[in-house]
Amino acid sequence: MGIDRTKLRWNGWGWAARKDDISERAEVWSWLAGELGMPALLATPGRPLEDLKLSDSRLSVQDRVELSAIVGANQVRDNLSERVFHALGRGYADLLRLRAGDLSDAPDAVVYPRSTEEVLAVLAYASRKRIAVIPFGGGTSVVGGANAERGPFGMVIAIDLSDMDRVVDVDPLSATATVEAGIYGPALEKALQAKGFTLGHTPTSFEFSTVGGWIAHRGAGQGASRYGRADDWLVSAKLATPRGLLTSGDFPATSAGPRLNDLVAGSEGAFGIITEATLHIRPLPEVVDYRGYLLRDFAGGIAAIRAAMQDGCGCAMLRLSDGEETRFEHAYARLDKARGPLLHLVERYRKLRGFGDRPCLLIAGYEGDKQTTALARQRFGEIVGRFGVAAVGRSVGEKWRRNRFQAPYLRDPMLDRGVGVDTIETAASWSKLDAVYGAARTALENAMREAVPREDAHGLVLCHVSHAYPTGAGLTFTIIFPRRLDGDLEQWRKIKTAAVEAILGSGGTLSHHYGIGTANAAWMRREKGPLGLDLLRAIKAAVDPEGILNPGKLVP
Amino acid sequence: MGIDRTKLRWNGWGWAARKDDISERAEVWSWLAGELGMPALLATPGRPLEDLKLSDSRLSVQDRVELSAIVGANQVRDNLSERVFHALGRGYADLLRLRAGDLSDAPDAVVYPRSTEEVLAVLAYASRKRIAVIPFGGGTSVVGGANAERGPFGMVIAIDLSDMDRVVDVDPLSATATVEAGIYGPALEKALQAKGFTLGHTPTSFEFSTVGGWIAHRGAGQGASRYGRADDWLVSAKLATPRGLLTSGDFPATSAGPRLNDLVAGSEGAFGIITEATLHIRPLPEVVDYRGYLLRDFAGGIAAIRAAMQDGCGCAMLRLSDGEETRFEHAYARLDKARGPLLHLVERYRKLRGFGDRPCLLIAGYEGDKQTTALARQRFGEIVGRFGVAAVGRSVGEKWRRNRFQAPYLRDPMLDRGVGVDTIETAASWSKLDAVYGAARTALENAMREAVPREDAHGLVLCHVSHAYPTGAGLTFTIIFPRRLDGDLEQWRKIKTAAVEAILGSGGTLSHHYGIGTANAAWMRREKGPLGLDLLRAIKAAVDPEGILNPGKLVP
Repeated sequence: MGIDRTKLRWNGWGWAARKDDISERAEVWSWLAGELGMPALLATPGRPLEDLKLSDSRLSVQDRVELSAIVGANQVRDNLSERVFHALGRGYADLLRLRAGDLSDAPDAVVYPRSTEEVLAVLAYASRKRIAVIPFGGGTSVVGGANAERGPFGMVIAIDLSDMDRVVDVDPLSATATVEAGIYGPALEKALQAKGFTLGHTPTSFEFSTVGGWIAHRGAGQGASRYGRADDWLVSAKLATPRGLLTSGDFPATSAGPRLNDLVAGSEGAFGIITEATLHIRPLPEVVDYRGYLLRDFAGGIAAIRAAMQDGCGCAMLRLSDGEETRFEHAYARLDKARGPLLHLVERYRKLRGFGDRPCLLIAGYEGDKQTTALARQRFGEIVGRFGVAAVGRSVGEKWRRNRFQAPYLRDPMLDRGVGVDTIETAASWSKLDAVYGAARTALENAMREAVPREDAHGLVLCHVSHAYPTGAGLTFTIIFPRRLDGDLEQWRKIKTAAVEAILGSGGTLSHHYGIGTANAAWMRREKGPLGLDLLRAIKAAVDPEGILNPGKLVP
Repeated sequence: MGIDRTKLRWNGWGWAARKDDISERAEVWSWLAGELGMPALLATPGRPLEDLKLSDSRLSVQDRVELSAIVGANQVRDNLSERVFHALGRGYADLLRLRAGDLSDAPDAVVYPRSTEEVLAVLAYASRKRIAVIPFGGGTSVVGGANAERGPFGMVIAIDLSDMDRVVDVDPLSATATVEAGIYGPALEKALQAKGFTLGHTPTSFEFSTVGGWIAHRGAGQGASRYGRADDWLVSAKLATPRGLLTSGDFPATSAGPRLNDLVAGSEGAFGIITEATLHIRPLPEVVDYRGYLLRDFAGGIAAIRAAMQDGCGCAMLRLSDGEETRFEHAYARLDKARGPLLHLVERYRKLRGFGDRPCLLIAGYEGDKQTTALARQRFGEIVGRFGVAAVGRSVGEKWRRNRFQAPYLRDPMLDRGVGVDTIETAASWSKLDAVYGAARTALENAMREAVPREDAHGLVLCHVSHAYPTGAGLTFTIIFPRRLDGDLEQWRKIKTAAVEAILGSGGTLSHHYGIGTANAAWMRREKGPLGLDLLRAIKAAVDPEGILNPGKLVP
């Protein structure tokens, strides 16, 4: 049921055979050059696989024998393609390194266990031999969560869960499913939907990420307002650690002290390897209805979402682009003549009296039975009506939904033309959201201006409210900028640092749904406070006394 | 804004001046004697306060001087009434001990800090001097959570938060309130409701318990299906520990590793003292509508609640008494002629064709705006209709609601007549709920039969589904039994042990909303597993290296 990884791009996103939508279209590149203040965008291809130089695997004969005795000889692999696939995740910095042929972080071997017992045995061996261990699900982390950094250890192995992808049990009475953690999103949904259920967890990485990864980084799907975050839908888990198995009870709620689930969600492979989990599933929705609304301005859109979440209006998703994101996506869409009719609609509404230059597109998702979704649609319509709105219809919403997993495919062709793209996300209380938005936007604009390759060039900052709650919301910033080919990793680090400092300084969290990994680990002391970090370190030491699990990540 | 504690019963529940409903009514006692298989129920009064013998306070002059230097001389108290009030909580075992005059666990002094800084300073001093510390909110714990056990320490002080009861801030935009942790339920609701908001957290102890206590034991109010458990509505907290202040960010959600809030909720004063918290509040509901339904049987009622929770029907509360609890409460109500009209209604429905001998009363609560509550009522009506129901109207629901904080007042007059009363609670997934219910009921019945004072006597087991979730539900058992006056603590321990073993053995949690305290601590290894317990101990050691905080509780 897994996916055929030989068909994935080794240095980019997704299926190798999938043609992207932009690389062949000259009008896109001339328009984008103009957007970035660049005279032109030249080809900047990555290195071919043949050019890679990989250091030799440090897997010794003895280690191979011992690991093979646990999982079987075929389940310990150190050939080139395995080591390359497990070297880095899919963050912007990872793509830069892959394209540059830098695979210094490749693991010495990849181990494929087929049971919790095998994972426990491998961890016990690795702990005894002081071998670093990288838990590996789909490998799509954008914060370095899957990178095979060895830390202070001589050898590093990846433990790949993809052979542990069974649906163990579906319990319709309790509305739960128990699955092995290596199962990918599409396989999980196929199995659940065959029985009339869904987990409904749809992060952008859905097609290429696994249940274990979703829980480990405490992720949130696009429809989290209905289906919940990983920390919401996680009912119980098995966490294999170097000190043995941690299990959490499948209780609907408990007051028997802190709940162990809450330490599993967000453990990022630093406390153990999630091998199995029980998840709260729901009946397949009778209605799935996504619609577009054009708001007069960003502040009004935010106020509408806040009112809706505090009203308990029952939307599955409320996603609001700011004026710049709306403008940019609209301008991009205009390049495509075939999309004319839809655009005309948007155009017409933009020209309505009072809508000015910076309208904001909001996509609302309604999922559930007919009665509930009809009521949610009616109530949200009433709320949004107070803030200056034009409903732009279901086609806009359905188009968004159709393309909801496609955005990452645009990164590779842009990198091929000297354009960097990254996303940075946070969440804050409603009271602080304006301040976080303003501070992050300004910091990103300034940092990009300082770090671009030409004086007149600049980056773009697009932002949307990606997730909403009664007490606050998540913001996702997309940045697009001309790469400095003489130092693109350094350029990215400066931009990233400026953004995180601005976010933390104005009251946002270090991450709302990406996790910490290596990219955010340096700020964990600031996020949790010195005592909070000590506490997380104490937890790690209790289950991983040698510190072999994901060294340097989460709790540096 | 606090409550005048001098007006509380020192060895029982609530206001001393409040007359109970039963002690003067002979018909109650003859009926109850019959229910318990006893020839009569004789008077068994507790000892008067004057009879108490309390050991001398071990507070030294130096300790008094040092503690007074931190909080002020008036804020360090060791007079009799202070020591008695802070000796024990309000569990069944506590009441037995108070009534017997056993105050061996009285603290040596009570300290009343007025700021987080003062709490930190007292904790630092106590840690340095190895003085045990009992964090004290309202003192209503029924699992020994507030008992002043000194553990291995020579001296024990209670830190009473009642002078820290300010509402620091109400943020209508973020729908949050920041309050000091010592605020009592009624004062909190008065302040919030004056601004149009409510927390909606109404445990049975509401009138006499505090926000800090609610969070510390990870409690759930009666309307938790709408308002959430403490672990749901807690947005952020300040936790004062011997190693300094732990603060958690007020983010609506985060994926920056495990969330510190999740360790504060359920920390039970063993990791630190909650001094301030930010809570998710909601607009006051437009409609508050509680109604009774009579179900054909318990299984049907459980199926209806399950369907409603999985349907997302939006009820604030669904509370289902089993056949025995319905029968008992009905029989008790029949003793009161004044309640005739209501009873007639119930009588009539009980006699409907097919309702048999064991109908079950369900109380459903609907809270919110008109449209939402109307829809919830309609949908729940449809669901419950599938399972054989008679709606017994709003008066039954309103009566339940009016009396929802009154049940504990019945314990004292019953104890005065040689009758023991306790409640034991758990939660389990829907798949396991029947097994847990059956196992606990059988274990309780058997244990009581073995531990009663006369051969023909026996106890009663009443049960209700107290809280419901999509994946399972909470069960609360009320046991009523003739006390063994020659060893009532031992009698209670045998019954309690049998119940907990049965619950854990059949898949229930050690506690759904009471917490662990001392009464449940012995089973924490079984609940969390050896590694899980190690992990909680590691957390405690990181913030409380000397182990002075609530020794023996939560993580023994």
